[in-house]
Amino acid sequence: MNFHFPSDTISAEIISVGTELLLGDIVNTDTAYLARELAALGIPCYYQSVVGDNPARLTSVLSLALSRSNLILLTGGLGPTCDDLTKETAAALMGKTLSLHMHSYERIRAVLSKRGLTETDNQKKQAMLPPDAVVFDNDYGTAPAFAMEDAAHGKLMILMPGPPRELEPLFAERVRPYLARITADDNSGRGSVIYSLNIGLYGIGEAAVEALLRDKMESGQNPTIAPYCNEGEVRLRITARGDTEEHCHALCLSAAEEIRSVSCAPYRPGVLDDYIYGIGCNSLEEALVTVLREKKLHISCAESCTGGYIAKRITNIPGASEVLDGAFVTYAEKTKMAFAAVKPETLAECSVYSSEVAAEMAQGCLSAVGADIGIGVTGIAGVDGDTRIYHGKEEVLNAGTVFLASASTKWADAGSDGSAVSDGSADAGSHCETVCLELAPGKRSPMEAREYIRHRASSHALWMALQTARRM
Amino acid sequence: MNFHFPSDTISAEIISVGTELLLGDIVNTDTAYLARELAALGIPCYYQSVVGDNPARLTSVLSLALSRSNLILLTGGLGPTCDDLTKETAAALMGKTLSLHMHSYERIRAVLSKRGLTETDNQKKQAMLPPDAVVFDNDYGTAPAFAMEDAAHGKLMILMPGPPRELEPLFAERVRPYLARITADDNSGRGSVIYSLNIGLYGIGEAAVEALLRDKMESGQNPTIAPYCNEGEVRLRITARGDTEEHCHALCLSAAEEIRSVSCAPYRPGVLDDYIYGIGCNSLEEALVTVLREKKLHISCAESCTGGYIAKRITNIPGASEVLDGAFVTYAEKTKMAFAAVKPETLAECSVYSSEVAAEMAQGCLSAVGADIGIGVTGIAGVDGDTRIYHGKEEVLNAGTVFLASASTKWADAGSDGSAVSDGSADAGSHCETVCLELAPGKRSPMEAREYIRHRASSHALWMALQTARRM
Repeated sequence: MNFHFPSDTISAEIISVGTELLLGDIVNTDTAYLARELAALGIPCYYQSVVGDNPARLTSVLSLALSRSNLILLTGGLGPTCDDLTKETAAALMGKTLSLHMHSYERIRAVLSKRGLTETDNQKKQAMLPPDAVVFDNDYGTAPAFAMEDAAHGKLMILMPGPPRELEPLFAERVRPYLARITADDNSGRGSVIYSLNIGLYGIGEAAVEALLRDKMESGQNPTIAPYCNEGEVRLRITARGDTEEHCHALCLSAAEEIRSVSCAPYRPGVLDDYIYGIGCNSLEEALVTVLREKKLHISCAESCTGGYIAKRITNIPGASEVLDGAFVTYAEKTKMAFAAVKPETLAECSVYSSEVAAEMAQGCLSAVGADIGIGVTGIAGVDGDTRIYHGKEEVLNAGTVFLASASTKWADAGSDGSAVSDGSADAGSHCETVCLELAPGKRSPMEAREYIRHRASSHALWMALQTARRM
Repeated sequence: MNFHFPSDTISAEIISVGTELLLGDIVNTDTAYLARELAALGIPCYYQSVVGDNPARLTSVLSLALSRSNLILLTGGLGPTCDDLTKETAAALMGKTLSLHMHSYERIRAVLSKRGLTETDNQKKQAMLPPDAVVFDNDYGTAPAFAMEDAAHGKLMILMPGPPRELEPLFAERVRPYLARITADDNSGRGSVIYSLNIGLYGIGEAAVEALLRDKMESGQNPTIAPYCNEGEVRLRITARGDTEEHCHALCLSAAEEIRSVSCAPYRPGVLDDYIYGIGCNSLEEALVTVLREKKLHISCAESCTGGYIAKRITNIPGASEVLDGAFVTYAEKTKMAFAAVKPETLAECSVYSSEVAAEMAQGCLSAVGADIGIGVTGIAGVDGDTRIYHGKEEVLNAGTVFLASASTKWADAGSDGSAVSDGSADAGSHCETVCLELAPGKRSPMEAREYIRHRASSHALWMALQTARRM
């Protein structure tokens, strides 16, 4: 393959074909995925569009795309039951004809025979490809992806299947390396290997992270740094290009080191490292389970307003059974007492919405299960506030007021932690930290407010447990 | 407003403006939402596109849109910190100029003063609108939405804010009624009021539902019926247009009645009603909590492989505290015994992966919490299968093998249920049903396979609990 894109001339465009997108039956996650991948490859993308299975409209959209961009990524319209002409239309515009691609045909037949299905004409159609296409085998479905190169006009069109379960691994395994190779450019240092490393941050906002890293993000060509925001979390994706994976990996790690030591002033105390929950890790729960497994620690939780959200997130992670034996949803006062050993007098004196009850829940579930760390959460997840009688005084609490506690049996470093609002009462040899969050759901619908508060509270609980585990 | 769209000439197009979409930082849920709403209104939409904040590219995309469509829905690019020219560019193409809209300006000032913020020039810019615009107040943010009507050329462009939390309620409350009004057409019976009713189905696939209802979906102009598929569930959206809400509601209910009685042959036994979990209801968990509240019943669960997923879904629903006092994540054998009263001999004889253990978990958590219904779930959520020694015989179980049980204290109608594979041992006065699911995660990544199995298993548990509650 001698096809090559000089890095300074490339401009991409993503087109999705499918009536289900035009009707809003499905959300276009393919385009978001490909857009992220193009950004990581350093390929600018100025347009995205969606069009139905109509040949005339498809032709007009593709012609326009070829007139303003030179790399067209097309998803959808390759299925066996499609009466569409996506492939034929696209090939015609690239000056190609289709013929049976024996390798793909054999692969499709093998898949069908493995599933005990008989072949239909439609399935044979999936193996019709331009003879000079670059074919990307599809290990996740029947329709192969393929690239049509037009070296004379400097145009490239890549057709890929629409289902995200096929598209995403197929792109990652086969199309991305191809794109990295053909856009590699020795002069600009863009190698043919591309490598990404994620850094997850908690407890600092996206705006602050962007402000702190703006210089690095703007000046950095290799590696590039891009922030992604997710409710209450920020993720940084560091992407390096180079000639070898080792070199790329080293570039990413060195950028990560620099990021860790960036001071958070004037937004937050400390350095960014204080807010990092994981490097090369995809979620708070993955970071937590990883540390617990490394240290052979067990966790339990007693959840009131989060109602199982924390346990559900911990058990999202393969290997969670090594660190969690059992946990409780203690929604009513009677179950808080029965399963998490909350004392009736604490409920009477402090009310169910209190750091004291959260602390007893944390210590109670820890004891009940024989774990090393216990998490207790109680608060108001609805849209309406509530009142509590706290030591005889009535207090109004807003919706989103959540009390969290993290208890542990042992603690190597008993140093103080800036994020703790108060220390709960601790049994001999145990430690407990409590925090009160005020989560403002803003103008959300009741269901969305509830989800927002519960998600944020469970994230904070995971973060507290991670901090505790790190110290143990 | 005399502006009117004859129903046979209208054709819509959705354009989203934003660099964060081009970079894949966010998924374009706005477009999916608007596309669904257009479909419900009976307005065809042939194109969707995304473009950045670049005036030249935005002009070319909008010009093309105006040349091929007559209703343009534009989202994004209205924020106070945007240096974009979305509004100016769009207004110029519609032959409009902008001036300060006092009503919107006062509203923005009121929001800012309530938040204790001082006004900036950028915020004033949000109140710059064409003098003859139809303005839609934004109760969810600062930037108003507005429509620009060009009666002479029969073109309409509506600009709306990008954040989904603003766009969706603003569209539903203000823009949708406007669109219904201007596209109302006495000749075709399309009234100015639009009303939708959701029907949720479980246990029957989308393909079967589509095949069973194809005639109704294709012939039905008013109401229209559209299916949406969600893992393991099908949702039907019935949408009626008419002159009054009562009339639309009656049309939807009558269509729902017809759907309920459709025979499922040859795909499934029974009629569609047997698979409906709710009418006018958004999820299995909402249907379950509603029935439990109506019947004043309490539920508990003991979850192994689902690890809190079922409790989390039940407590998603406001009012869940009336029906759930407590629940257990019993991941390890020791917690199954300690909290869900699973007998050591059952674990030894049947293994932890068995209907017998699921049944004991269901009955055990019911008793421990004093609930009316208990759910027990145990199985293999990973990507690797496992073996069990079942009554002395080694058996291989695939990943996705999940045993579920639903126990109850009383049961009005003790008739047999077709979906039950076997009946667990029941205490005096109690009933217990068990099911073994074989969930095939297909070619998913380990994390996705896990999520798929856990989500499907929790859905089935909610469905079993609903069936049990209905009989009580």
